[in-house]
Amino acid sequence: MAGNSIGTTFKITTAGESHGPGNVVIIDGVPAGLKLSIDDIQPDLDRRRPGQSKIVTQRQEADQAEILSGVFEGRTTGTSLAVLIRNTDQRSKDYSNIKDNYRPGHADFTYNAKYGFRDYRGGGRASARETNVRVAAGAVAKKLLKQYWNVNILAYTQQVGDIIANINNPELITSSQIEANPVRCPDVNTAIKMEALIHKLHEEKDSIGGIAQIIATGLPAGWGEPVFDRLKADLAKALFSVPAVTGVEFGSGFAVATAKGSENNDCFNIADNHIITSTNNHGGILGGISSGMPILIRAAIKPTSSLPQTQNTVNTYKQKTTISTKGRHDPCLLPRFIPIAEAMVAITLADHALRQNAMQLH
Amino acid sequence: MAGNSIGTTFKITTAGESHGPGNVVIIDGVPAGLKLSIDDIQPDLDRRRPGQSKIVTQRQEADQAEILSGVFEGRTTGTSLAVLIRNTDQRSKDYSNIKDNYRPGHADFTYNAKYGFRDYRGGGRASARETNVRVAAGAVAKKLLKQYWNVNILAYTQQVGDIIANINNPELITSSQIEANPVRCPDVNTAIKMEALIHKLHEEKDSIGGIAQIIATGLPAGWGEPVFDRLKADLAKALFSVPAVTGVEFGSGFAVATAKGSENNDCFNIADNHIITSTNNHGGILGGISSGMPILIRAAIKPTSSLPQTQNTVNTYKQKTTISTKGRHDPCLLPRFIPIAEAMVAITLADHALRQNAMQLH
Amino acid sequence: MAGNSIGTTFKITTAGESHGPGNVVIIDGVPAGLKLSIDDIQPDLDRRRPGQSKIVTQRQEADQAEILSGVFEGRTTGTSLAVLIRNTDQRSKDYSNIKDNYRPGHADFTYNAKYGFRDYRGGGRASARETNVRVAAGAVAKKLLKQYWNVNILAYTQQVGDIIANINNPELITSSQIEANPVRCPDVNTAIKMEALIHKLHEEKDSIGGIAQIIATGLPAGWGEPVFDRLKADLAKALFSVPAVTGVEFGSGFAVATAKGSENNDCFNIADNHIITSTNNHGGILGGISSGMPILIRAAIKPTSSLPQTQNTVNTYKQKTTISTKGRHDPCLLPRFIPIAEAMVAITLADHALRQNAMQLH
Amino acid sequence: MAGNSIGTTFKITTAGESHGPGNVVIIDGVPAGLKLSIDDIQPDLDRRRPGQSKIVTQRQEADQAEILSGVFEGRTTGTSLAVLIRNTDQRSKDYSNIKDNYRPGHADFTYNAKYGFRDYRGGGRASARETNVRVAAGAVAKKLLKQYWNVNILAYTQQVGDIIANINNPELITSSQIEANPVRCPDVNTAIKMEALIHKLHEEKDSIGGIAQIIATGLPAGWGEPVFDRLKADLAKALFSVPAVTGVEFGSGFAVATAKGSENNDCFNIADNHIITSTNNHGGILGGISSGMPILIRAAIKPTSSLPQTQNTVNTYKQKTTISTKGRHDPCLLPRFIPIAEAMVAITLADHALRQNAMQLH
Repeated sequence: MAGNSIGTTFKITTAGESHGPGNVVIIDGVPAGLKLSIDDIQPDLDRRRPGQSKIVTQRQEADQAEILSGVFEGRTTGTSLAVLIRNTDQRSKDYSNIKDNYRPGHADFTYNAKYGFRDYRGGGRASARETNVRVAAGAVAKKLLKQYWNVNILAYTQQVGDIIANINNPELITSSQIEANPVRCPDVNTAIKMEALIHKLHEEKDSIGGIAQIIATGLPAGWGEPVFDRLKADLAKALFSVPAVTGVEFGSGFAVATAKGSENNDCFNIADNHIITSTNNHGGILGGISSGMPILIRAAIKPTSSLPQTQNTVNTYKQKTTISTKGRHDPCLLPRFIPIAEAMVAITLADHALRQNAMQLH
Repeated sequence: MAGNSIGTTFKITTAGESHGPGNVVIIDGVPAGLKLSIDDIQPDLDRRRPGQSKIVTQRQEADQAEILSGVFEGRTTGTSLAVLIRNTDQRSKDYSNIKDNYRPGHADFTYNAKYGFRDYRGGGRASARETNVRVAAGAVAKKLLKQYWNVNILAYTQQVGDIIANINNPELITSSQIEANPVRCPDVNTAIKMEALIHKLHEEKDSIGGIAQIIATGLPAGWGEPVFDRLKADLAKALFSVPAVTGVEFGSGFAVATAKGSENNDCFNIADNHIITSTNNHGGILGGISSGMPILIRAAIKPTSSLPQTQNTVNTYKQKTTISTKGRHDPCLLPRFIPIAEAMVAITLADHALRQNAMQLH
Repeated sequence: MAGNSIGTTFKITTAGESHGPGNVVIIDGVPAGLKLSIDDIQPDLDRRRPGQSKIVTQRQEADQAEILSGVFEGRTTGTSLAVLIRNTDQRSKDYSNIKDNYRPGHADFTYNAKYGFRDYRGGGRASARETNVRVAAGAVAKKLLKQYWNVNILAYTQQVGDIIANINNPELITSSQIEANPVRCPDVNTAIKMEALIHKLHEEKDSIGGIAQIIATGLPAGWGEPVFDRLKADLAKALFSVPAVTGVEFGSGFAVATAKGSENNDCFNIADNHIITSTNNHGGILGGISSGMPILIRAAIKPTSSLPQTQNTVNTYKQKTTISTKGRHDPCLLPRFIPIAEAMVAITLADHALRQNAMQLH
Repeated sequence: MAGNSIGTTFKITTAGESHGPGNVVIIDGVPAGLKLSIDDIQPDLDRRRPGQSKIVTQRQEADQAEILSGVFEGRTTGTSLAVLIRNTDQRSKDYSNIKDNYRPGHADFTYNAKYGFRDYRGGGRASARETNVRVAAGAVAKKLLKQYWNVNILAYTQQVGDIIANINNPELITSSQIEANPVRCPDVNTAIKMEALIHKLHEEKDSIGGIAQIIATGLPAGWGEPVFDRLKADLAKALFSVPAVTGVEFGSGFAVATAKGSENNDCFNIADNHIITSTNNHGGILGGISSGMPILIRAAIKPTSSLPQTQNTVNTYKQKTTISTKGRHDPCLLPRFIPIAEAMVAITLADHALRQNAMQLH
């Protein structure tokens, strides 16, 4: 009800603030018997954490995860699985200036309006730090999807500012191509330009937005529910639950506005005795249900709101003032958004995999 | 779990197929004492129903609603409110050719993959006919929002093909401007062009996509939950749960990709002793919580998949074949999508209004 | 949230009042392909309906069900299944005297306290009439449980007043033994005494309580969840959701209070290469999870609150007054409670069957 | 879905095993602004923990709680509140003999049947140790109920074996009366006999059952939902979710079986201009909704299953064997069940308080 859970069958519930003792996630609905250790979780956390490259925030947060429950002798037990990540870098003094001033683009004002007061240290619960435990849960979901359905989920940076990657077949991109550079853009030449642009914005004490491409391959046809819990509905919710996401589209997305039906329809065809579609404008989902074609999603990410330059704002006493956010922030959110996007898609697909499995009677 | 409910506190559950006896919605969470009669519900149903103008499908469906429960002596009782809409136009013979052939762009194939068989009459549960009871529930939500919070929700057609309405301040558009023409575009001159384009596509046995703009005004700051049930997340889910929606964006949406933080941030300001933002790139939601500024959403709608021209496809026996969809279909979905979009936004906001109210202790 | 749904995977949502147009249930989570027709549903409705024998209320309610959705060509489609039961016997004049007076033992006062007003006709939503659609949903659950897991659910009247049936092995009782008399007590001699007692109370313008025994056989070991959704927790909730239930116990139940551990523990044993327990004090559930032994539940049912004799009460104006309930009421609720109890147990077990199935990966 | 959450609006989710790193609870739905510190939580944990007196298990578990999130500067923030309790006493060697042998009365066999294997150390997730975080959450619920609605919740030991406390007015019992002796029975003379009986059973290497009485006072009329989420249904589920509970009854409970309606009905009356009932056979709930009278619940608790005497059982290889449980166990569960019962009732009432508040529009 207060919105700290997502999913129905594979369901995660989280707690934690930027500068509290730590963040914790409880995963309800992990089938018993999955081989799992901290080594399955930490790598994705390392992809999300600050300080991993020169183009992300230089804050030092170790993001070391501890499995509190649900794993015994290297396998999941079927009971709830909790992961705790202690906060270690809590430089509260960096944030003292925001106690009474509302940062533009942040949730300071809306939290005060909602709750009457707020934990102003580093944004409290509104800080993206809470996504670290989502990434931990996403790693468990990825492992489950890979092991039982051979589903793979990848995301990469497709656009930063007006620099756009040139990639024809997103479904053929590999993890190593994505991880080959700090921008997480598999088009090497474009990645270099993106990195330069991000560096430039950082120098200018500004930030820049972008677009991420997310791809899920290997899904069988049949996942997703017919009316409200369509796969696109649940995936969109999961992605929009991440701070800074301002748009989500599937397949042709907003381009359908100018398309005719005769162009946009993907004709069915046969390949290797499987039913496929000749094109994939539908992005792998028809009627809310997976078609067996790759799922293609794009998410728009706004430029970081925290800026080390002077901005006009008001304070909690309804007086006009200015603010310049101190602390160390990402000049572009895309590189660190990539593992978060993968996590949210994995959590959603794991949920729908189990939901579909629930109804398969033998 | 099978996805026939949406919402947590104001929650709707639906059932019904295109050619079954009817569709029904149960609304759980209507506060007691709201004045309500069928006259509050039928007008929006009439805006959604087929046959209302020359540019929509000419099928005749009366969509007459009956309140089955939850209203006594003109007021809601606080118990579950059910609305039934009988199907009256069930020309099954129109659909006999689709029993074994998969229509491109439709859910025929994915339903078969999911369930092993399907109710092929008119698309069964995958038909947009099920949205009629969503519109009925939306009318209840609208009344509740208007009465207790003075919230208004409107949607209009912003784009059809490459014809784009010229509207500077969506939040100032009125219902009568929208309803003044069958396209539901408040820019009169553009509406005429859109209507001509839709007519042309119909003549060509084709269809065309478009974009809808949805606006909610009057919300106080403070609705929405901080992590997974952000207002944007729940609104996006609600809109993506509607057939044919392929993209959703809030405020600046995908345009943030090329924006700098210094441009995209909306500075806080004071007006009439209220805290506002000088611009509204954020679309009325910050940190997942309403800011008190108008909520601005855009949704992309694909061109109708049912086409009366020959398309390549396969059948249930994995043989290549062709199909030409008979029956009477909308050449453009936008005009009838408008009331559905309003309904889904209203249902979501009513839910969050009550969720916020739950936590206000005195 | 307003409590009109029960279950998570096999989930039902209901609406309807005693004297409104009708009652409706939407079942979400029926797997596709189950053979189902109205003939699977109507028999249990006939066991629940008024007027079926001389010892139950003589109101005439046909309780004819109509399947609105979710079944196509004799099989469930996997989408939501709705059943509608129109109200036909709405003698509102019988209830006009209760508009302003609170009936002892009824929800008149608490509904007014909760909602500010109430649908006073026949108790409105508080009337047990709403259980008719639960019985319809229960029939679907029973069919599902029988077909895929060979689970059988039966209930019978074990006690009426101080007359107690003498039955040693509840798990061996058959449906035909139960249905052989109007009291639904399989101990024939006791049933005659119960019937006489009920008749006597009716003559005295009074009513009498009793105890029902419910048995579920055929469950495999492994259904139920470890912490909050223990099988006993969900079964108890389901049974306590029925009007007039005042106590629920499993296996030895309240008798454990005087038992030693060495007496109460059921030792494990081997029979036919299966692990069983030598005794069944645990009632088929250990640690919240089914053990494979028969599930044994007892529910206490209070005497009907509606009495055609004068009782002291107050009215809505906080004045003392008296009331004598007119209309035709059951002098003992047990005979009609039996199919309701079976339905609630079936709905709960169907839910847990699918929940367990969700986690079985191959 | 896997059953690690309870509640809808005030909702708790837990994780943890007996011998893992610790137990954690996330509370979703704590209103902002409630004064709260660890000092509100630890006292109830101390009432539940082992080693607190001579008649409970002598295991040493500190049960020191840490608030991980949701509290800032001494007040709740409105975001999810997490509490962690590390396990400190993990004497795994005590449990090595149960790895392959099924303990009678325990969940060893059913967990294996459900999950294929189990964390056998101290019962894993099936151990009552997981209730420590329920008690922590219950302390938060109690504080909320007390502060905003002046609701008080108490429980005490009413019966141990055949020794029954003599208490006429449960609603007048005070906390200090209950805490005055280690049995938590406010009838001092009876408490001494109970203590002697428990000591005797411990000497005999056996255990004994009993009955707890739970009372909630101060509730306004109007809490609870009309159909499935009746107050009695949700309270019963909450109590049956606790290990060892085998029966629950409200008000007259099972005694209604022999009662006439004219005796069992509680007549309405006026006192201090409030509507009350002259008697309280209904136990404070009518039609599933609180009547404003004290809520009276009784729960039956089975004798501890772990016994240091030889019992017949089978092992995981389906061979007959014997087992004698080592380790240190409670000869009677009642003393430590009392705070758990209070917690579960508090959690349920806090949920319904907020649910009712959600629907109160002004």
